[in-house]
Amino acid sequence: MNMQNHPFNLAHLLDFAGKYHPTQKVITRRVEDDKIVEHTYKEVLSRAKRLANALIKLGASPGDCIGTIALNTHRHMESWYGISGQGCISHTINPRLSMKQLHYIVNHAEDKFILIDPIFWPIIEGMHSKFPKVEGYIVLTEKENMPKTEVPNVYCYEELLESSTDDYTWPEFDPHQGSSLCYTSGTTGDPKGVMYTHISNLWHAYALSLSDAIAVGAQDTILVVVPLFHANSWGLAYAGPMIGCNLIMPGKRMDGQAIFELIDKYQATTAAGVPTVWTNLLEYADASGRIMESLKDVVVGGSAAPPSMFTRFREKHDIDLIHAWGMTEMSPLGTINRPSGGIMSLPDKDYRRIRRKQGRPIFGVDIKIVNDQGEELPRDGKEVGRLLVKGNWVVHTYFKAEQPAIDGDGWFDTGDMATIDPYGYMEIIDRAKDLIKSGGEWISSVDMENHAMGHEEVSLAAAIAINHDKWGERPLLIVVPKEGHKPSKESLLTHLSSEFSKWQLPDDVIFVEEIPLTATGKFSKLSLREQFKGHFG
Amino acid sequence: MNMQNHPFNLAHLLDFAGKYHPTQKVITRRVEDDKIVEHTYKEVLSRAKRLANALIKLGASPGDCIGTIALNTHRHMESWYGISGQGCISHTINPRLSMKQLHYIVNHAEDKFILIDPIFWPIIEGMHSKFPKVEGYIVLTEKENMPKTEVPNVYCYEELLESSTDDYTWPEFDPHQGSSLCYTSGTTGDPKGVMYTHISNLWHAYALSLSDAIAVGAQDTILVVVPLFHANSWGLAYAGPMIGCNLIMPGKRMDGQAIFELIDKYQATTAAGVPTVWTNLLEYADASGRIMESLKDVVVGGSAAPPSMFTRFREKHDIDLIHAWGMTEMSPLGTINRPSGGIMSLPDKDYRRIRRKQGRPIFGVDIKIVNDQGEELPRDGKEVGRLLVKGNWVVHTYFKAEQPAIDGDGWFDTGDMATIDPYGYMEIIDRAKDLIKSGGEWISSVDMENHAMGHEEVSLAAAIAINHDKWGERPLLIVVPKEGHKPSKESLLTHLSSEFSKWQLPDDVIFVEEIPLTATGKFSKLSLREQFKGHFG
Repeated sequence: MNMQNHPFNLAHLLDFAGKYHPTQKVITRRVEDDKIVEHTYKEVLSRAKRLANALIKLGASPGDCIGTIALNTHRHMESWYGISGQGCISHTINPRLSMKQLHYIVNHAEDKFILIDPIFWPIIEGMHSKFPKVEGYIVLTEKENMPKTEVPNVYCYEELLESSTDDYTWPEFDPHQGSSLCYTSGTTGDPKGVMYTHISNLWHAYALSLSDAIAVGAQDTILVVVPLFHANSWGLAYAGPMIGCNLIMPGKRMDGQAIFELIDKYQATTAAGVPTVWTNLLEYADASGRIMESLKDVVVGGSAAPPSMFTRFREKHDIDLIHAWGMTEMSPLGTINRPSGGIMSLPDKDYRRIRRKQGRPIFGVDIKIVNDQGEELPRDGKEVGRLLVKGNWVVHTYFKAEQPAIDGDGWFDTGDMATIDPYGYMEIIDRAKDLIKSGGEWISSVDMENHAMGHEEVSLAAAIAINHDKWGERPLLIVVPKEGHKPSKESLLTHLSSEFSKWQLPDDVIFVEEIPLTATGKFSKLSLREQFKGHFG
Repeated sequence: MNMQNHPFNLAHLLDFAGKYHPTQKVITRRVEDDKIVEHTYKEVLSRAKRLANALIKLGASPGDCIGTIALNTHRHMESWYGISGQGCISHTINPRLSMKQLHYIVNHAEDKFILIDPIFWPIIEGMHSKFPKVEGYIVLTEKENMPKTEVPNVYCYEELLESSTDDYTWPEFDPHQGSSLCYTSGTTGDPKGVMYTHISNLWHAYALSLSDAIAVGAQDTILVVVPLFHANSWGLAYAGPMIGCNLIMPGKRMDGQAIFELIDKYQATTAAGVPTVWTNLLEYADASGRIMESLKDVVVGGSAAPPSMFTRFREKHDIDLIHAWGMTEMSPLGTINRPSGGIMSLPDKDYRRIRRKQGRPIFGVDIKIVNDQGEELPRDGKEVGRLLVKGNWVVHTYFKAEQPAIDGDGWFDTGDMATIDPYGYMEIIDRAKDLIKSGGEWISSVDMENHAMGHEEVSLAAAIAINHDKWGERPLLIVVPKEGHKPSKESLLTHLSSEFSKWQLPDDVIFVEEIPLTATGKFSKLSLREQFKGHFG
């Protein structure tokens, strides 16, 4: 052997943080009472090892799936490491899934234990009889906050930790072994599981931490708004210990004031989450007249951020809004938007336009766009094609599936329609299934939403395709006005006219109080299309 | 298979740069005439592929070692990729090695071809008969600068490229296969070869590019002063294409003016090299009254940078001098000094003191210090022990050696004496063999040199141990004054007294015009000890 080749275990990340960044912290807003607590990496490491010992005592064996139904807290993060580090699979479950999906996922994964926040206990109370393979539940809280229940084999997390020691050495095994499992909550069909491996998460953590990705160092503090159950919190709970920065886990409060308070009190330098959270935050900042001084970057992904959001962060708060794009199937980092040398000399307008795209790949991921025949399309920033991706943190075969999820050359079809420009920047035009096909031409629902959300009286806007006898499909715009505002249909259409041709404008605008969201916080276009399906006759 | 697992080939880094950063550049000061030329990554990729085809035509096969004797130019960098990318071994050879070492290395590696800068051709002219296994020489130049020679099988690099196409696909192979070879020029015994692998270089490139390491993005420009033959140019010629930043290759001119000109003309943001180059640069800047405005960071390694260098960069040029430490055996990154959360709240004096240390490990490397019995010593910043390292870009077994270079737990003994503080920052006290052992106590030659070089009339200073009848060893200080200055022995001793006890002061100070350097630019203490061995009787 020429160079050393020690097998990697995800828990080595936490070992490293405990040894080299022992005083850096994981800061949590508790789900029980919204109080804020702090734990050093040294403590988090010790607690993860205690959990590993406790799980072994309960009967966990390498290869077992262990579910978590929990928000972002130090306990949930400890669970990841305590579970994966001993060779089990940390299966993060989105608490907002439907009963049907939960039922499917827990049984498909064959979870042996489930770790759960006390606030989600009612889910188990109602469903435990449908989880025949689950041997026990661990409630992520202390004794006094344990639920009163008749369900058998319910354990208190803090009691388990107290009765265990941190005398534990992470075992060695093949780093290509599964470490963690996340199901995509597809809008059709059964959810599909992506089984990440120790090594795929490590590749991803390195790439994510680069200067052209999240760009954090050990002196930084990341506010992790993106849930630990949402594609590994975009990998931040792995990148944090790798880098040695502080992590803030915001618990259940996602309102602008609570988020602002965490940023301000702990001088967060970076924050990551979906657009809706940032909308709340910006509105709170506007209303209270406060400025986010410590934040340098806000990473936004999950859905496209509207152009106005970039301007608001930059002009009012001197914050660079960093657009990122990925999928559960990609661990999730696909592209992220940092400036490259090639665009620095462009006129400001063009530069800003490019900086609003979903970004370019970090080394380790390759992307291309193809036409319906699978032929690669030019990278000219104009041609729209189906986006395919490839790389060592991209899924090969869904959990327990018989066929690979990729083509013979290793490309995974994202289901998105996109352009790629000569500088390598990719822009999502729409989900392939959300594109509005009117009279043989395409209208991007994402573009329409983004422009509509730039209207000063609009809080949220969703554009969907409605069947139309003559044109096949026509766009319908569904709008949630800002509080206290009553925009008119005409003002919306006028506003959109600056960017859209007349034939692209929506045939109608409907004002509603809220737009239904999917379990991952995106507009549920399936529900909207169902609700308004006969709208144009 | 859960996640994809494409085998990595170093040339994929250049593929990536050619595709996503096609207009970023490798800027070279030519060795032939010191003129500056620019090549885009797209061109560099095309040329590396042409070279691969040309080498195959000449008879290169996977696994062959191919030597390079060259300075930093785009051609040398292209060679790396053209050689390793096709499955051969890129063997970088330091042109400043002794004939004896060159003879040993070329034959030990069994180099099949040697690529060489025209300025080094005289080496081959004198030695080619001693290289029976070398089948041909490729001179890294164009036809008009080819040497006139009777040596058989001498090819012109540019002619080979012109007569080849870039129609070439890098082959797939096991990424644990060797990619590149570098011999340590040990001061005793035969040189030892470190065979890097494709995957070890990839791990290293990711780690090196992190925000707490070199921290560069695609909008940056790195001046690569550290030679491509010096531990892979610290990995910069891999990190550059991975990140997509511009690289500046300075050719043969290492004087302050030439280096300043490159920084200024191409607005370099980062530069990396050994202390002597930065001394020249700072002296030029002082003398010409110019400021390095574009540079944010200067990375210094190879030997310890004196404290005064940190102050001069920071106070005059607003540049953060980043201390790094590594070895050929470590690819080379061991530690690097960026601030961590724990030290940010320290008083400025303590903070600055820590920032001058060699730094802390990046995830992927672990370090510890041990006593003579191999027991780990506390990380208290005080205890001095032998520094051991471990990680997947650290050597396992030297090339063609029979025994591993590491102990049973995977630790490699660096031969350095060091401290590690509670924040994880390591400080090299000395090479174990350079420590001066006087009356049973240790005196650090490095400390003494650093303090001596803070004297305003001193350009360079080396401290060595001289045998002494009574004390075993006593320190001797050898000083090169700044041009036009004549410091006295007394002023040196007075200057040192502020930091050293009386018994630690050198018994004598000798003024010389130059200090002999090793092939890697460090003080040749072996020569100095030889030269002055009877100085104290």
